[in-house]
Amino acid sequence: MNIIDIILKKRNGGELTRAEIEFFVRSYVSGQTADYQAAAWCMAVFFRGMTPEETTRLTEAMALSGETLDLHDVVPFIVDKHSSGGVGDKTTLVIGPVVASLGLPVGKMSGRGLSFSGGTLDKLEAIPGFNVRLTIEQFKRQLATVGLVVAGQTQELAPADGKLYALRDVTGTVDSLPLIASSIMSKKLAAGADAIVLDIKVGRGAFMETVPQAVELAELMVKIGKTAGRRTAALISDMSQPLGLTAGNALEVQEAIETLHGAGPADFREHCIAVAGEMLLIAGRADSPDAGRAQAASALSDGRAWAKFREFVAAQGGDLAYVDEPSRLPAARLVAPLLAPADGYVAELDAREVGRAVVELGGGRERKEDPVDPAVGVVLAEDGKVGRRAVAGAPLLWVHAQDAEARDLALARLAAAYRFSDAPCEPPPLIHRIIR
Amino acid sequence: MNIIDIILKKRNGGELTRAEIEFFVRSYVSGQTADYQAAAWCMAVFFRGMTPEETTRLTEAMALSGETLDLHDVVPFIVDKHSSGGVGDKTTLVIGPVVASLGLPVGKMSGRGLSFSGGTLDKLEAIPGFNVRLTIEQFKRQLATVGLVVAGQTQELAPADGKLYALRDVTGTVDSLPLIASSIMSKKLAAGADAIVLDIKVGRGAFMETVPQAVELAELMVKIGKTAGRRTAALISDMSQPLGLTAGNALEVQEAIETLHGAGPADFREHCIAVAGEMLLIAGRADSPDAGRAQAASALSDGRAWAKFREFVAAQGGDLAYVDEPSRLPAARLVAPLLAPADGYVAELDAREVGRAVVELGGGRERKEDPVDPAVGVVLAEDGKVGRRAVAGAPLLWVHAQDAEARDLALARLAAAYRFSDAPCEPPPLIHRIIR
Repeated sequence: MNIIDIILKKRNGGELTRAEIEFFVRSYVSGQTADYQAAAWCMAVFFRGMTPEETTRLTEAMALSGETLDLHDVVPFIVDKHSSGGVGDKTTLVIGPVVASLGLPVGKMSGRGLSFSGGTLDKLEAIPGFNVRLTIEQFKRQLATVGLVVAGQTQELAPADGKLYALRDVTGTVDSLPLIASSIMSKKLAAGADAIVLDIKVGRGAFMETVPQAVELAELMVKIGKTAGRRTAALISDMSQPLGLTAGNALEVQEAIETLHGAGPADFREHCIAVAGEMLLIAGRADSPDAGRAQAASALSDGRAWAKFREFVAAQGGDLAYVDEPSRLPAARLVAPLLAPADGYVAELDAREVGRAVVELGGGRERKEDPVDPAVGVVLAEDGKVGRRAVAGAPLLWVHAQDAEARDLALARLAAAYRFSDAPCEPPPLIHRIIR
Repeated sequence: MNIIDIILKKRNGGELTRAEIEFFVRSYVSGQTADYQAAAWCMAVFFRGMTPEETTRLTEAMALSGETLDLHDVVPFIVDKHSSGGVGDKTTLVIGPVVASLGLPVGKMSGRGLSFSGGTLDKLEAIPGFNVRLTIEQFKRQLATVGLVVAGQTQELAPADGKLYALRDVTGTVDSLPLIASSIMSKKLAAGADAIVLDIKVGRGAFMETVPQAVELAELMVKIGKTAGRRTAALISDMSQPLGLTAGNALEVQEAIETLHGAGPADFREHCIAVAGEMLLIAGRADSPDAGRAQAASALSDGRAWAKFREFVAAQGGDLAYVDEPSRLPAARLVAPLLAPADGYVAELDAREVGRAVVELGGGRERKEDPVDPAVGVVLAEDGKVGRRAVAGAPLLWVHAQDAEARDLALARLAAAYRFSDAPCEPPPLIHRIIR
């Protein structure tokens, strides 16, 4: 078998066999296939696409390109959740404790923020002492004892995906549906989940901007998961505006804590209940979606989720004094409101611009190696969200900044991220579709 | 400017500006743009194509990526000829002397054979003593004194093309029309020709297999040449069967010598006269195509071309004893005929298979670094060409081999390269079209 023939076959519109896909992945990881050949192949895939069967073969080959995790020695059934990333997406901090408090263990490997999109590890590290670097032994022990653990990748899972993703990033081949789907799913398969709930965000603050795109991606990933023998479902959730009222690491931890106390913004709370309910359903812990949601809602209102969160934070070295009294979390020096310029309905708030503002304030990163400042961010007023009526001179949001220059830049960017209407506007649906 | 943006622009169907193309070429030569980025770009070009203007910009940027040759200090006007390569294509050995003997200097940098296609340098080296490695000073001196010189590249012309071609070869991006056209023309522009005649072969023994493909390529190259201020014309010539009766280095030299003596196979002679006539026309040495052809024909019949060939061979160190008595040229140990299996008209003789047979006999090369044996090859009978009537048991061709095993392999391959018909067949036209 020859890599040039494989490139040509894909370039000319052919469907690659399992043997060809496996040869490509194996030879790329070993270095026999060069980066320039893999880059040409990725561009050919961009233009020609892949059948669902080909995409599944690629996913499985990448999943098996390195070590795979097996957690069945500590828990009988693993359910994983994956969010495709967004702005204000602190869902893991709430969903993890909810689901774990209901007896379904959650062991999750999370990522960091990049570009406009935030990351769960950065949020957890806003809690002083919180340690996301666990060995696989620590990971398993905590999964067995607490039932909830969130860490960075303990070892290199799916190294073919790591290598290919870095290449796609610099060769203009990121936005290919089969390559996106296989990248995400290969890591999930390698991490050993029995069931996977995908939270695919759609809108300006997500990587997929339209619902049909997001549905296509979600359907493909669900098909891959099922073909690989994992129970899989996907929610298409809205990311046209930020989720909840906060974007920025410590600010989002505070909002998650409020929600775990049974309060918090309605949209964020509803979103967490929907995803947690889906996890309970797919794991066989609930008989219907409504039953799953009801269980999740009660775990939030009766304090079980909050108790599990405290247990989880303590197990990973986080200082409970900060979560018990969230006002002690890192805070920015300056807080300044953005005032509504006139009376009117909020028609649009561009989540991507909010994410960019957080990056510019220092709370996110442009490059993988950049540090983040946990204190800064943006807090929306309830009347600053889409569908609400803004009153001239009343705050739409507050910028939390470390200096006046960054504050003013963020205020200008955020002012331009709003669009108002004289006529009433509907808020977007929270969940566009569920694919099971 | 950023290479990823340039890849994305091309991938999404945009037309690259001069500045973007120049950035790509410059940054690729300097190493700032990586091979994997150039490979992704080439694949995007394969799918999206390039406008003639873009292709011209790419050609010019590659031509200017290294040193360029200026021969005007020794001759006032340079006409160059380029053949796209084929089987039995010994035309330079005849056309060069014809044109030079008529007072139009020819200074040509030629290449070596690769895959099924032969190369002029390999053919000339079948003459003992012949030296194709000249310094630029030697090249210029001979151009001034003899008016005819054929050598390997004296220095690295168009290094961007060299680097990009090597990359395309291993990334499945060879057969893109704008990349082929810019590759050929960038070297011609860098070599300093004032006028260029392109001999674009079409058929099984050529890189372009159909006339419309070849016409599209030729029209694009003529446009590039003219836009770059060079007089340019192209002949689309047939390469469905081998040109003339010989394929193999010393055998082709013998056939060229016969032709320079005013004899030789009619198709090869006519082809040389057509191309030489076009060179005289484009250089302003003839008023019409017919006048150019008439001049070329008389140079062949009155001995001027032959005298110029001897002068040229002697100047480059070739031993005239061998060209004056061509039977002394390297000869193979075994000569065996392929006999016609039955009476019938020759409907097809696959030139690519003839070229492959020569490679297998040792007369061509699969890899750039392979040596070639000048003695071996294939000699067709006159009745072995398309359109002739073959008689059962009479020879179609003779294989010149060094051992019985190679001979038998070649005979089997060549037997399968023929197709016969009961009905009379027309030979293919020699020249399909001329584009001026």
